[in-house]
Amino acid sequence: MEVKKEVTIYDLAKTLNYSPSTISRALNNHKSISKKTIKLVKETAEKVGYRPNNLAAGLRNNKSKTIGILVPHLNRPFVSTLISGIEESARKAGYNVLISQSYDEAEIEIANARTLYDSRVSGLIVSLAMQTELYDHFKQFTDQGIPIVFVDRVPKTYNSYKVIIDNYTAGYKATKHLIQGGCKRIAHFAGSQHRNVYEDRKKGYVDALKEHNLPIDESLIIPFKTLSFEEGEKATKKLLKMEQPPDAIFSANDTAAVSAILCAKKMGFSVPEDLAIIGFNDDPISKIVEPALSTISHPALKMGKISAKRILEHEQKEQDDLLTEVSVLNTEVIARASTRPIN
Amino acid sequence: MEVKKEVTIYDLAKTLNYSPSTISRALNNHKSISKKTIKLVKETAEKVGYRPNNLAAGLRNNKSKTIGILVPHLNRPFVSTLISGIEESARKAGYNVLISQSYDEAEIEIANARTLYDSRVSGLIVSLAMQTELYDHFKQFTDQGIPIVFVDRVPKTYNSYKVIIDNYTAGYKATKHLIQGGCKRIAHFAGSQHRNVYEDRKKGYVDALKEHNLPIDESLIIPFKTLSFEEGEKATKKLLKMEQPPDAIFSANDTAAVSAILCAKKMGFSVPEDLAIIGFNDDPISKIVEPALSTISHPALKMGKISAKRILEHEQKEQDDLLTEVSVLNTEVIARASTRPIN
Repeated sequence: MEVKKEVTIYDLAKTLNYSPSTISRALNNHKSISKKTIKLVKETAEKVGYRPNNLAAGLRNNKSKTIGILVPHLNRPFVSTLISGIEESARKAGYNVLISQSYDEAEIEIANARTLYDSRVSGLIVSLAMQTELYDHFKQFTDQGIPIVFVDRVPKTYNSYKVIIDNYTAGYKATKHLIQGGCKRIAHFAGSQHRNVYEDRKKGYVDALKEHNLPIDESLIIPFKTLSFEEGEKATKKLLKMEQPPDAIFSANDTAAVSAILCAKKMGFSVPEDLAIIGFNDDPISKIVEPALSTISHPALKMGKISAKRILEHEQKEQDDLLTEVSVLNTEVIARASTRPIN
Repeated sequence: MEVKKEVTIYDLAKTLNYSPSTISRALNNHKSISKKTIKLVKETAEKVGYRPNNLAAGLRNNKSKTIGILVPHLNRPFVSTLISGIEESARKAGYNVLISQSYDEAEIEIANARTLYDSRVSGLIVSLAMQTELYDHFKQFTDQGIPIVFVDRVPKTYNSYKVIIDNYTAGYKATKHLIQGGCKRIAHFAGSQHRNVYEDRKKGYVDALKEHNLPIDESLIIPFKTLSFEEGEKATKKLLKMEQPPDAIFSANDTAAVSAILCAKKMGFSVPEDLAIIGFNDDPISKIVEPALSTISHPALKMGKISAKRILEHEQKEQDDLLTEVSVLNTEVIARASTRPIN
């Protein structure tokens, strides 16, 4: 393969016998240049493979027309639907996206933030890694006036746009749904308590139990690292081998809930008669597992669209007063066959 | 939010009272600069948020240390595992990745290729959109000597690195597995015949039937657009309402195969007694559906690792002679409960 040299404005100037500044102004639709010349320059630029110096252009007007997305895991339906929502809105506005995943590790999140920053994105949409506790790697964006939207998993202390669901109420509703089915000994698969989403879901669970005069049994609250299928299996085995096993599980995601269903069945427990199970997210798998998984709806597509909108509208805003702008979305219980009918 | 100005080499020079060229050489570890000065300059640069002009640096030594990934859909387990394989190898070599998805549309693929090109990736790994028939959007990379690896869905006519499985043999094996279970009227869910993977799987299916003296019935070969769940449902309904319905389906992916299982059960057919079903990819869902789906293994992680390796090793190669380098991986039938035992 022969390597061609990068085409510059100077090459275009030479080819067309214009000055470099005429070429530059033509490429930027400057009013001093005739439409005919603009057309000629742009067509020639296209033909010879000229690409604008995004670094310089990006610095001047901050318009790379690319939104960076930084998420924990791409293989989660919530995440891929969120991204679809972002892309749908972004593409309508002529923006493209670049995506990276942190695998829930703070160190990778930091490296990805840097790569996206160096790609000169015009905005960043982030769902935090499970273990991220410091937010210095986002300062480079904020310092340059590049808008950041934190979505779903958001920092408590960082001033920015935030798009979330009401996790507390969702956790409360999920637990109440189990209580209304007659369950009295309800376990909880809890995500990392660093993250707002899991902390709030757990609070909702605890408060629902309290309100219905059910005891809080710490041995029934299982801390998870990433709420994976494997972790779900391990936790279910542990719970069902207890002298007095739980009669229900509220899992902070569907992945672990589905593995709980499969594991309980394998161990000879009936779902939901012996063990009722409710998940979180309404992943496609929740309709496929048998019995079908009751769960909490998660407006991922809408959250993606709102997040993109925040970036796209950012430029039109009075920036000085903006500290934090939070959008909170509602969720609902989706009752399927893995929980008992409400009494 | 107050917008800080970008920190330049000139700012660093002023702060440290060095010449700009000393700063530049220090940042590039030039041997004329003392280690002490290099350390001081780099620490100061880090502190004030200086970032190198990647455009210029990237052009000079073509080392952005970023691999661009362009895939059809992020919400497919094959794709996310492929990406994990790429990232595992890339990160070990100090490379980061940027990901984009085409949603199986050629137009989006073209826009994404441009965005990744403008981000100055040092290599590109692509699995083609279902409908892509022209490959001009990859020429910008090839012209600049940026290596491209096509993986799984690859063009027939474009000289580059390619990493694929033996789709023909896999299609043959899947069909033979159904025949060995006693099936005689085998339908096929076929992907877009533009794409090597689906074309080859279908050829394997046709040849397996021929070799076992079974007729090729065109009404049993259903063309799919994207092999989605919804398409699978529609196709299954159509097949099972035929006067003489098939006794087996070989689906070119697991998503459509799982929807076939659910749909057949809903319509009162027993799987595999009335209808045996085999998929392709060994997605996690294949173990969760009941009966568990027989399928074809797909070495996604390994394909990802090999693809990254091709990019990382590219620089060390003699480029002149390289036209095309194809790596072909093997696959196996994974027999589960959705197909009949082999006679």
